[in-house]
Amino acid sequence: MRLERIFHSIPAWMNPDGPESGIVISSRARLARNVSGFPYAHLAGDDKLREIVDTVLDTANGAGFDRSGFFRNEDLDDAGKAIFVERHLIGYPNAASAHAGSPDPSLAGRNFPRGVLVMEGEYASILINEEDHLRIQSLCSGFDPMKAWEEVDSIDDRLSQSIQFSFSRKYGYLTACPTNIGTGLRISILVHLPALVLTNDAQRMIRSAGQIGLVVRGYFGEGSDVVGNIFQISNHVSLGKPERDIVEELIRAATTIIDYEKRAADTLMKDAKNQVEDKIFRSAGILKSARVLSTSEFMNLGSAVRLGLYLNVLSRPDLRSLNELLVITQPGHLQALQGRAADSMDRDVKRADLVRERFIDVRL
Amino acid sequence: MRLERIFHSIPAWMNPDGPESGIVISSRARLARNVSGFPYAHLAGDDKLREIVDTVLDTANGAGFDRSGFFRNEDLDDAGKAIFVERHLIGYPNAASAHAGSPDPSLAGRNFPRGVLVMEGEYASILINEEDHLRIQSLCSGFDPMKAWEEVDSIDDRLSQSIQFSFSRKYGYLTACPTNIGTGLRISILVHLPALVLTNDAQRMIRSAGQIGLVVRGYFGEGSDVVGNIFQISNHVSLGKPERDIVEELIRAATTIIDYEKRAADTLMKDAKNQVEDKIFRSAGILKSARVLSTSEFMNLGSAVRLGLYLNVLSRPDLRSLNELLVITQPGHLQALQGRAADSMDRDVKRADLVRERFIDVRL
Repeated sequence: MRLERIFHSIPAWMNPDGPESGIVISSRARLARNVSGFPYAHLAGDDKLREIVDTVLDTANGAGFDRSGFFRNEDLDDAGKAIFVERHLIGYPNAASAHAGSPDPSLAGRNFPRGVLVMEGEYASILINEEDHLRIQSLCSGFDPMKAWEEVDSIDDRLSQSIQFSFSRKYGYLTACPTNIGTGLRISILVHLPALVLTNDAQRMIRSAGQIGLVVRGYFGEGSDVVGNIFQISNHVSLGKPERDIVEELIRAATTIIDYEKRAADTLMKDAKNQVEDKIFRSAGILKSARVLSTSEFMNLGSAVRLGLYLNVLSRPDLRSLNELLVITQPGHLQALQGRAADSMDRDVKRADLVRERFIDVRL
Repeated sequence: MRLERIFHSIPAWMNPDGPESGIVISSRARLARNVSGFPYAHLAGDDKLREIVDTVLDTANGAGFDRSGFFRNEDLDDAGKAIFVERHLIGYPNAASAHAGSPDPSLAGRNFPRGVLVMEGEYASILINEEDHLRIQSLCSGFDPMKAWEEVDSIDDRLSQSIQFSFSRKYGYLTACPTNIGTGLRISILVHLPALVLTNDAQRMIRSAGQIGLVVRGYFGEGSDVVGNIFQISNHVSLGKPERDIVEELIRAATTIIDYEKRAADTLMKDAKNQVEDKIFRSAGILKSARVLSTSEFMNLGSAVRLGLYLNVLSRPDLRSLNELLVITQPGHLQALQGRAADSMDRDVKRADLVRERFIDVRL
């Protein structure tokens, strides 16, 4: 029943009220923290892990984060876990960063005492005993990494009043994987770059981003593929700089990338207006008519429709419906909607139904 | 101006009021005749050819066929000739049957004295100095070869009162190409067989048809490709049998093929309903939304829509609009509509516009 509450709520980030929300879907900040005096999660036994869960939950509840939003890993079946992954509340299974020799750090993996505390509206969450004891994350609409960072920073402050986090004067916050050491901050945006892909400039953009310390990944972050021309762009280094500098650097670099995307979109409309409009309208036409639809096809056609909204070629569906479809058309959500073990054809039919509902007032 | 009259009229065969018009687009009969005492067209000089044109036109006019419906080959530019080909009023250029060593027998080829007399509503036409001196043809809606044959037979009778046709007691009517000798009758239907194509049974059908003396060809007959799953099926032999027997044999064989198509369509809807409906609706969705559309893409998507109408999966557009689009989306018609030398992109844009107009009330 509680899972249903999550399932039917609309996460705040889906509302396209953030800056540049025609291009940037969401911004995310995440702090990695470990409780002082406990072994790292992958080295700790179940008793210790259970103790960490209790400590964090008690502290969070005391700090005003309702513990009824906590979902224990062992209470979730595979479809339930998938729902959290699909809402970007927990990590993608088998992420490339999995600490060597450790159990799958994602909550979607093997069971041991761990879980996720989800705040109202999903604007923030705390993962307990994933790769680190705590992963405090905040997700907000559009291009607003500073807001996301300020949110996690405030949660960090409130928890720090009762929990002592592992900290070294020399290195800063200590983390299970050395890439997160220092600030423990990972800041990222999910950005839609269809014009850069269409003009074949996306690969160049990814290389340039790498040269200035950014990491470009797929839709579900580490270990996932790029689908629907949606890229996750994040900082690589969390050490040796104040948090605010890390956030500002990401903002500066991402602003350049967003600017390239806008220029590529202008170029496309100048040089190939017919073909671009054709692609956009056909994609909307297929989504408005298909009776069987795979996830990847939805992501790709949805990308063209999103571009159409950005270019004002289309005025419908609204961006919020499109954001919502990004999540509810994923397999875990569809399985939950159908309330039974659905086969792939059942899901493809249901996905097509959901999409057509949202495309009913789209004019072709 | 006269070309415009043809251009804007709706040929009678487009009305889906003939038998089986959900599957059979049109039925055609054609008689090959030569005027006694004149060399065959490919052996005759311009003076003789001109004489034949005048003789036939005078006779036809006297028999009640208004000579103002005559279009001289030399008065038509390439786009004008294409319009007649696209309306199935004259043969496809470079037809495989071209008599060895003769000029292109199609009116769409090189200029010499020849032309086509078109009857009101395009229900019938007389080609003068194509491969034979006369090709009397009639085209009617749906599966009605007997009606088409009776029409050409009646025209033949009326012309025979004033013109003596080359005839041998032994062989029957004499023709420029021996395959037409005897009755000079070619009877054919344009039939839409998407289900046989989808179930991979079309090739087998074509082989079987060959074994019982039928010829299966593409959309524009001899020398043309199969596009949009539309096949031309005709008799192979015109010698040694009364006309009515030839027509009845074609009707019998075609009835079997139509029956196979119906059974294949039933099987598809039973075994793969989701996929078939998906294909139909997507095709309608793309035609309702595309801004750039090639001829072959229109033919293929239009085939799925035609199947959708047959299966009652779609109720719009009406079959007549679909028949009309088959003709007016062809390059010659588009060129004439645009009234200037249009490039390929211009035509693809105009084609998409025309199709969207006809799909405006299609519900997806």
